[in-house]
Amino acid sequence: MKYIIGVMGPGEQATDLDRQIAYQLGTLIAQQGWLLLTGGRNVGVMDAASRGAKQANGLTIGILPTPDAVDVSDAIDIVIPTGMGNARNVINILASHVIVACGMGSGTASEVALALKTGKPVVLLNASPTSQAFFQSLSGDVRVAQNVEAAIEQAQTLLGAVIHSS
Amino acid sequence: MKYIIGVMGPGEQATDLDRQIAYQLGTLIAQQGWLLLTGGRNVGVMDAASRGAKQANGLTIGILPTPDAVDVSDAIDIVIPTGMGNARNVINILASHVIVACGMGSGTASEVALALKTGKPVVLLNASPTSQAFFQSLSGDVRVAQNVEAAIEQAQTLLGAVIHSS
Amino acid sequence: MKYIIGVMGPGEQATDLDRQIAYQLGTLIAQQGWLLLTGGRNVGVMDAASRGAKQANGLTIGILPTPDAVDVSDAIDIVIPTGMGNARNVINILASHVIVACGMGSGTASEVALALKTGKPVVLLNASPTSQAFFQSLSGDVRVAQNVEAAIEQAQTLLGAVIHSS
Amino acid sequence: MKYIIGVMGPGEQATDLDRQIAYQLGTLIAQQGWLLLTGGRNVGVMDAASRGAKQANGLTIGILPTPDAVDVSDAIDIVIPTGMGNARNVINILASHVIVACGMGSGTASEVALALKTGKPVVLLNASPTSQAFFQSLSGDVRVAQNVEAAIEQAQTLLGAVIHSS
Repeated sequence: MKYIIGVMGPGEQATDLDRQIAYQLGTLIAQQGWLLLTGGRNVGVMDAASRGAKQANGLTIGILPTPDAVDVSDAIDIVIPTGMGNARNVINILASHVIVACGMGSGTASEVALALKTGKPVVLLNASPTSQAFFQSLSGDVRVAQNVEAAIEQAQTLLGAVIHSS
Repeated sequence: MKYIIGVMGPGEQATDLDRQIAYQLGTLIAQQGWLLLTGGRNVGVMDAASRGAKQANGLTIGILPTPDAVDVSDAIDIVIPTGMGNARNVINILASHVIVACGMGSGTASEVALALKTGKPVVLLNASPTSQAFFQSLSGDVRVAQNVEAAIEQAQTLLGAVIHSS
Repeated sequence: MKYIIGVMGPGEQATDLDRQIAYQLGTLIAQQGWLLLTGGRNVGVMDAASRGAKQANGLTIGILPTPDAVDVSDAIDIVIPTGMGNARNVINILASHVIVACGMGSGTASEVALALKTGKPVVLLNASPTSQAFFQSLSGDVRVAQNVEAAIEQAQTLLGAVIHSS
Repeated sequence: MKYIIGVMGPGEQATDLDRQIAYQLGTLIAQQGWLLLTGGRNVGVMDAASRGAKQANGLTIGILPTPDAVDVSDAIDIVIPTGMGNARNVINILASHVIVACGMGSGTASEVALALKTGKPVVLLNASPTSQAFFQSLSGDVRVAQNVEAAIEQAQTLLGAVIHSS
């Protein structure tokens, strides 16, 4: 079984910094030998992280909201159309061993909240103090990373705990 | 077509105040002639709001995460098991014309976030300043109500806009 | 808790006879005091059954594949958009206490198969010998009704068993 | 983007012949360089096809009905828990470029029906004349293969058409 790291973040609303960080994150995830899972669309954090992973020869999975493979990032190797709209956010979370949220928007917020609800380890990256305060008020288990390298280190630790407990 | 107000809130983690407010909210929703929709389980805000609606002779719908009608509030008239776990949160939002979040937890946070994502009108009731600040940072469209009566007034206004635009 | 009878059948591909039978079925379901649940769209068996139920003052629920209330039968009282495409077929089955399939098509076939998979009682009405033979080869529990009155009688019996076992 | 062949078939109810054929099918799919997608559980056709693919060094994906990676075949590389029960059958179909049904049961029947509903190419293998007659009565597009080699040839042709049209 392969280890899957989910990178969640804004699509059309992603900032330049969100995308830049997501690209680095994708590269480092691939270099660890982990699979990268995203929401699969050809915009924002999903697209940037997948491109970063591909340039490091990683394997990428995209869980699409649409029933067909439309508007999919061309850096996705394994395209999983669901036809379930935002209900695919649940699958993004359940299929990832560790989740890194890069930036914040309403879709990303639903995914972080679902991670907390289902007990999945989640790391916040490039999140505002307001976002951090909110999710930490929901759960003591929310991690915050100050940069991409720290996020990867935290993912390693969290993955170790996942492997250990299974 | 009947108008449906979704009341979302914590289950096992609900506070006494959450449940007390939810009960009043359910009663007032029923008195308006609106249908009450909840996540259907026999705990917390879901259960309290449904009980409040029933004592005012309202009609109640519960969208369950389970495939069978287990652990369902006995104040639910129309039981919709989905077998989809937390993906039913998406249906809670899409099936409601207006959503009132009463209290806050990770499941409720996912629902408020999905409401913002899908453009559904949402009112926060009994939410902490931290929660209010977070959701208002995501969208200018989040409403905050100071008490149950104000939530109902806001729901009336929001419902008027929904009816007008359809 | 109210008893819900699901009527499943072709949409655009429904025959005149399918729709005629579905209308009568909807009327008789409403006269029994049962709720009618369908896939909610404004075509075929879904629409005809819902119209039949409304002319007998029944209450109708529609579980839509779309995220919005579009192309919905105007004979639906309680509109539940899911945004989940054909995955809503699973909800059609799980939310019904008894299912009557009226006519046959690929969507209806998926629903009858899911009913057998999940142990939900199902009655075939206006099904070809080929369809009957197939579903009876999958399960000894498939019922076949020769006319609308017989389908209602079988639904009464099946509902009695559901109530008894719960 | 990698090509994905979905192999659907009975779980606990699979016959020895179903599993034997599924194993060969998995092996040949892997030898073509295609990814194998199944329902992921550690029984029946899902498990046998995945084992066949692994012994030929193929890559295997499993779309699980459960929210956790439980009862999963240990021949699955990429585990996608959905927590959506039978609604994951829709994803099995939408994520596959071509579907081969090996044997028949109620779950498999729902998947073949959903493939016809969504226009996905589907090949029946080891299906009874009753099953063949039923699905061919639903659609002129159902293919029947007499053996594993013929199923692979048909999958090649169907995949060629998919690639051509996209």
